[in-house]
Amino acid sequence: MTDEPTTRLRLDLAYDGTAFNGWARQPGQRTVQGELEAALATVLRRAGSAPTLVVAGRTDAGVHATGQVAHLDLSAAQLRHVVGRGDRDAAAALRARLNGIAGLRSDVVVHSVVVAPPGFDARFSPIWRSYEYRIADASAHRNPLLRGHTLWYPARLDEHAMNAATAELSGLHDWAAYCRPREGSTTIRELQRFDWRRDDTEVLIATLRADAFCHSMVRALVGAAVAVGEGKLPGERMSALRDQAARSNEFTVMPASGLTLVEVGYPPDSELEARAAQTRARRESPVQ
Amino acid sequence: MTDEPTTRLRLDLAYDGTAFNGWARQPGQRTVQGELEAALATVLRRAGSAPTLVVAGRTDAGVHATGQVAHLDLSAAQLRHVVGRGDRDAAAALRARLNGIAGLRSDVVVHSVVVAPPGFDARFSPIWRSYEYRIADASAHRNPLLRGHTLWYPARLDEHAMNAATAELSGLHDWAAYCRPREGSTTIRELQRFDWRRDDTEVLIATLRADAFCHSMVRALVGAAVAVGEGKLPGERMSALRDQAARSNEFTVMPASGLTLVEVGYPPDSELEARAAQTRARRESPVQ
Repeated sequence: MTDEPTTRLRLDLAYDGTAFNGWARQPGQRTVQGELEAALATVLRRAGSAPTLVVAGRTDAGVHATGQVAHLDLSAAQLRHVVGRGDRDAAAALRARLNGIAGLRSDVVVHSVVVAPPGFDARFSPIWRSYEYRIADASAHRNPLLRGHTLWYPARLDEHAMNAATAELSGLHDWAAYCRPREGSTTIRELQRFDWRRDDTEVLIATLRADAFCHSMVRALVGAAVAVGEGKLPGERMSALRDQAARSNEFTVMPASGLTLVEVGYPPDSELEARAAQTRARRESPVQ
Repeated sequence: MTDEPTTRLRLDLAYDGTAFNGWARQPGQRTVQGELEAALATVLRRAGSAPTLVVAGRTDAGVHATGQVAHLDLSAAQLRHVVGRGDRDAAAALRARLNGIAGLRSDVVVHSVVVAPPGFDARFSPIWRSYEYRIADASAHRNPLLRGHTLWYPARLDEHAMNAATAELSGLHDWAAYCRPREGSTTIRELQRFDWRRDDTEVLIATLRADAFCHSMVRALVGAAVAVGEGKLPGERMSALRDQAARSNEFTVMPASGLTLVEVGYPPDSELEARAAQTRARRESPVQ
């Protein structure tokens, strides 16, 4: 790292997670971060070291995203390097370059690149993340064209029982019962929304929103709700399990393929920096 | 063939055409008909020769279907063979069996199997076929999760110019200019509908409906409309080319991946047999 001033860029992107081993760079694995950073290195070659991407949602292997957000910092020399003849600005030029490279297999699309407002941090500034989980149960229409991001579930699920159970669940709680533990990380999160609807083909769609989710939390919560919908778990057990704060074998964590990160919410520009500072402080505090 | 009485079943099915070399059975190729007939042979083994499927729309390699229709004829012995313990009826049992086998790779789904009404012929009874073609042009949002059935087109297309051109096109005409010729087949068809809309992500969706389409007709018509939308072909040329009845190099036939057979229309049950007879007579008449 040098003290050279940098410009922070915000990237909005989407990917089909099927052929990726998740977001985070890992040696020898195809990951979204790995592909994008390799593309950045190609675009910026001979203009300093390639930047690192910081992301809002570190999705697991097989999880999709339609509304992922990341940031990166470029030096003035790198920005100049990106701008070609006829380009309006460096940010738009970078978007076109990345799509030309990362899009080779067309499973990652960079929708926009813009200069980030002051204080913006893709990981620490968000006030919420929103995920969807799609399930074609026995009463839904199974569309083979959408099977890559829809779980086909053999039984009929009772969405009314599921909604009754998940409506009780929101709020600021310790979600250890629904999280794969990570050393030194708190499992206290604010679940803001968790509900189910059927679309016009009767596919069940769960929407889950929280300030942040701990590891495997969305898929564990969906798994518990599916157990409720199948009549295998009483609805009130979902909150009871949460309050026991211990992992349970009464439900299974659902497969990654049905899960999509759909949107990341940021506060107004004037609050970005304060929000990031607040999140950093909370994440770094010891588990309560 | 024997004179043994048979029961005709109607199958409604969907498939992702990506990994298929089209509908029609071909030696050494993975095709939808080939996979389904092999599955039928497995279900009906030791109960007479496997039946042949007759289909409403013989889709080309890579073309998808969400509303395909086919029929097959089963003998009484075959029907009895299909019904297992606990099955409500042979048709529903056959659907479950086929999905258990053909669905191995989940790119074909049999949505329903029912006993067909008298006179029903999947191929000759339809009064129309309806296709959709999806294009994410430069002004559309590209969703990697839908890229398998959406063409990504680099330029911006003017849907108003396209709609103005295609609105003039409908009616009973000779479509030789838009058909790949097949010996002994007429190219006279009634185009009933061809229009464009943008969905909520700005993806362009063409809907085309005709009594039947000749070979490559949908993709040729879409290609000509795209040339209009890009300003490369004056809108009035679409009808002019049609009336010249000769193949033109003023447009390109679009790729299969954007095309989906979405629905097949049949007349009321009382008219199924008459419609089939009428279609057979017209198709077998020499090219005018």
